[in-house]
Amino acid sequence: MPAYAIGIDFGTESGRAVVLDLESGAEVAVSEVPYPSGVLDRQLPGTSEELPPDWALQDPDDWVAVVERGVPEALSAAGVSRQDIAGLGVDFTSCTVLPVRGDGAPLCTVAGWQLRPHAWPKLWKHHAAQPVADRLNEVAAERGEDFLSRYGGKLSSEWYFPKLIELWLEDREVYDAADGFIEATDWIVWHLTGYERRNICTAGYKACWAEREGLPSIEFFEAAYPGFADPAAKLGTDFFTLGTKAGTLRPELAQRIGLSDATAVAVGNVDSFVSAPGAGVEEPGTFVMVIGTSICALVTDPREIRLPGITGVVKDGILPGLYGYEAGQVAVGDMLAWFVDEIAPGVAAGDGDLYEALEREAAALRPGETGLVALDWWNGNRTILADADLTGVIAGLSLSTAPRDVYRALLEGIAFGNRRIMDNFAEHGLELGDIVACGGVAEKSPLLMQLIADTSGREVRVPDSAQIPARGAALFGAVAAGRFADIAEAISATRPGTARRYVPDPGANAAYDPVYAIYRELYETLGRSRADLLHELKRLRVMAPAPVAAASVTAD
Amino acid sequence: MPAYAIGIDFGTESGRAVVLDLESGAEVAVSEVPYPSGVLDRQLPGTSEELPPDWALQDPDDWVAVVERGVPEALSAAGVSRQDIAGLGVDFTSCTVLPVRGDGAPLCTVAGWQLRPHAWPKLWKHHAAQPVADRLNEVAAERGEDFLSRYGGKLSSEWYFPKLIELWLEDREVYDAADGFIEATDWIVWHLTGYERRNICTAGYKACWAEREGLPSIEFFEAAYPGFADPAAKLGTDFFTLGTKAGTLRPELAQRIGLSDATAVAVGNVDSFVSAPGAGVEEPGTFVMVIGTSICALVTDPREIRLPGITGVVKDGILPGLYGYEAGQVAVGDMLAWFVDEIAPGVAAGDGDLYEALEREAAALRPGETGLVALDWWNGNRTILADADLTGVIAGLSLSTAPRDVYRALLEGIAFGNRRIMDNFAEHGLELGDIVACGGVAEKSPLLMQLIADTSGREVRVPDSAQIPARGAALFGAVAAGRFADIAEAISATRPGTARRYVPDPGANAAYDPVYAIYRELYETLGRSRADLLHELKRLRVMAPAPVAAASVTAD
Repeated sequence: MPAYAIGIDFGTESGRAVVLDLESGAEVAVSEVPYPSGVLDRQLPGTSEELPPDWALQDPDDWVAVVERGVPEALSAAGVSRQDIAGLGVDFTSCTVLPVRGDGAPLCTVAGWQLRPHAWPKLWKHHAAQPVADRLNEVAAERGEDFLSRYGGKLSSEWYFPKLIELWLEDREVYDAADGFIEATDWIVWHLTGYERRNICTAGYKACWAEREGLPSIEFFEAAYPGFADPAAKLGTDFFTLGTKAGTLRPELAQRIGLSDATAVAVGNVDSFVSAPGAGVEEPGTFVMVIGTSICALVTDPREIRLPGITGVVKDGILPGLYGYEAGQVAVGDMLAWFVDEIAPGVAAGDGDLYEALEREAAALRPGETGLVALDWWNGNRTILADADLTGVIAGLSLSTAPRDVYRALLEGIAFGNRRIMDNFAEHGLELGDIVACGGVAEKSPLLMQLIADTSGREVRVPDSAQIPARGAALFGAVAAGRFADIAEAISATRPGTARRYVPDPGANAAYDPVYAIYRELYETLGRSRADLLHELKRLRVMAPAPVAAASVTAD
Repeated sequence: MPAYAIGIDFGTESGRAVVLDLESGAEVAVSEVPYPSGVLDRQLPGTSEELPPDWALQDPDDWVAVVERGVPEALSAAGVSRQDIAGLGVDFTSCTVLPVRGDGAPLCTVAGWQLRPHAWPKLWKHHAAQPVADRLNEVAAERGEDFLSRYGGKLSSEWYFPKLIELWLEDREVYDAADGFIEATDWIVWHLTGYERRNICTAGYKACWAEREGLPSIEFFEAAYPGFADPAAKLGTDFFTLGTKAGTLRPELAQRIGLSDATAVAVGNVDSFVSAPGAGVEEPGTFVMVIGTSICALVTDPREIRLPGITGVVKDGILPGLYGYEAGQVAVGDMLAWFVDEIAPGVAAGDGDLYEALEREAAALRPGETGLVALDWWNGNRTILADADLTGVIAGLSLSTAPRDVYRALLEGIAFGNRRIMDNFAEHGLELGDIVACGGVAEKSPLLMQLIADTSGREVRVPDSAQIPARGAALFGAVAAGRFADIAEAISATRPGTARRYVPDPGANAAYDPVYAIYRELYETLGRSRADLLHELKRLRVMAPAPVAAASVTAD
């Protein structure tokens, strides 16, 4: 049987194709292709018209370029022939979503629509649909909609229906001209195979679909947006389990990229969720953290539990046969970069760069020694408060507070935020095991990994791979090809090695308890009982009144 | 009549002698003499023995050097003759206090005592007597001592009795060998005139004395420290009103420094309090802010009102005939330096230095635009919470928070802290007028001055002088000499011009109301109802447990 699979990971700024050895689990070759157009948040290609604030679009040609350049490059570097490739899987950012014609053509590539901003794919971090999300949340709460509790009580503005209804409200012609509105991960599979086969992961986590309950009702949408009508109109109602074979490569494309047209292609997946199998995790309870700009935290359990503040729980959403839970922290790598690059860039770093110097200095401090507690809400709180209008807090500042103290307090704030999330799961009956951490910051900050171990009291394992999502995508491709009976078999055959293992220090764990107790009280006070204070601060910032007269200084 | 007076201002690092023209109010000459020994916080001169933490001593020879070098230099630069000098006044840091023999010799200058740390003058910022202050406060509160309410409910560790009892507890031989324990401002007057004439200002603000009530009772001290006995033993009970002539210059000293031995010398004064007359303020209600490392805020009123959180209220303590109220903020110039020099030193400053760049950028922001609120408790809170164990807080941080935002938030935090103090006075019935601000930071940060005006809704006037305390000292010297009938007449004859006047902007004032409302809620929450959280953070910092084992990282 063919011994390799290809995984393609479509990120925010680039895509990566990986050739995975299905016998050894080795990544035989990796090819990265940056998106020529990147994130379109200022104007459309070829125009000078400004996009509104909070918009973020992408160009589907950039994704196609990853396929057309990345796959041949990776194949060539791997030195394997087309017969050796069993299957191909993809993962994508989500909810990245675009209007398409019935033949699969993105509307933004169709003559007459190229200059219409709403015809373009909206990237996950397009945040202009917040008013729609607010309205949907309000109406869902009023009506006591059951689906809401699968999403911790709140839908995100990043998701499918806020973006679709934004389109419906703001450019009805584009809406009407689109035969479908589709996740990019499903679109690229359609592009690869010629078959529209939407996956259940994005349907569940981003479009509020569930196997038993289906979509939220027409009555709900009618109550929120009269006239919007059938939510399935642009989405459909058929969704396919992860690992399902969507089809084989279209012959002309297969030839162009050097693969056989017999290559199986799995239904699409999402970069965060696919990291669990990518990291070699198939057992319930193991807590997977994907740590980069933000943290996506994943865990599976045989039972469905509705609990507050989670991003979502979806049956089969991560691994078939299990309920997949998603939680997360919004500001992580970007919050650290904010401090190191924006606030304290000139602090003397000695040898090496400032990150390394701060890591080294902060690592020498003891629990509690900074005197600081940080609430890591620089970009709101995702779990467990699900409140985008919270902002960050540093308490305990003194004249002796040094940059290393602030840096460590930010790391501790991330670790405490994670402990709060794990506590929330445990308090609602999920049994949690050890932690597997991957992503750029898991590599970059050993101190953060140790602090996550020390504060949680659980071992943290960092897998030895920089291509965790692409590995997971490749595994589903191999399953789709029938190379393995199921994803569990694929995982156990290819599990990556461990780069580093962080064992919790019992002394530090105990010493952090009283600091965490303060954190948790501040969290409850400023995040719940007096959340009005931070909300009002943000409102005043955004709504800052018209400029006042210049300071009036006179001398006499 | 002689047309000039001399004021000598003894600061923390240097002393300044000023020759003041009593007809025009002009500062004819200034001479500054740095203290050779500066602040002794590591070891005594000529020894290598380490001083304990929180100690801060001075050398009386440094003060004498200011008299011997500074006065002749200033006289020479002024080009006035000894007959032209009517009188001389001094002001000093306080409570700076030293043990002396009956002949006025500082014990640290007497053979046999030079190597005893407790024989040396303790500078105002010697903080090692905190346990004594805690004990006195506890016992005073238990006994319901009336004097406590003159000091907002709490005595400071910097004051007379904590320092005296620290001496009594820790070096009984020095205590017994000292005939007196005296404020430096009274000691230098003794040195100048040969007469021990203690002033009522330091007796009132620092030694808990009041005209009607006298000192706290022997029973109180006996309850707190059995055996300590009579509080008047080293202090005396005769205190002289500000502007009283202590005597004339000792002939040999007068000759040495180029003055007549008929020159009248006023009883001593304190650098902060003397700034009110120095700035030209004699009317009740005008709010005087001395803004440097910290803020000392002063106001006078015909009535005695006991109100919470103030530093103290003393009859005749600032201006004879009025009750003088003192309040303050602990971290101001040093908090700004902390941010600019320690945290953000490498932020690109463009042209000019970083302070100027941050001032310029922060001045362009609108009220509320930073999205931040800072509680300026980097060194605790003096007024109105009187809580040294509080620490600073910044709330509202986001990924778009820039250094200019933090800088402005710190200034706003200072301005809000001042408004809170003024609100407290007003809520307890004091009628406040406009603000007069002096001190280094009043010069350095026009933005802070404008923010104090905008947040308080009151005009801020900055007098045109860098020698406000020395001016005030000189005025009392002139009164002691009979050159004026009283200090009010002296002030109105010599009032300094106005360098800058900051008029509150009504739009900014209104725009700050909702921001201040958030500040005040955070202040109440973290400073009172949940002050335990910041207290515990500080306790954990100070008591940080023994180092934990190094991070245990293994690879496999």
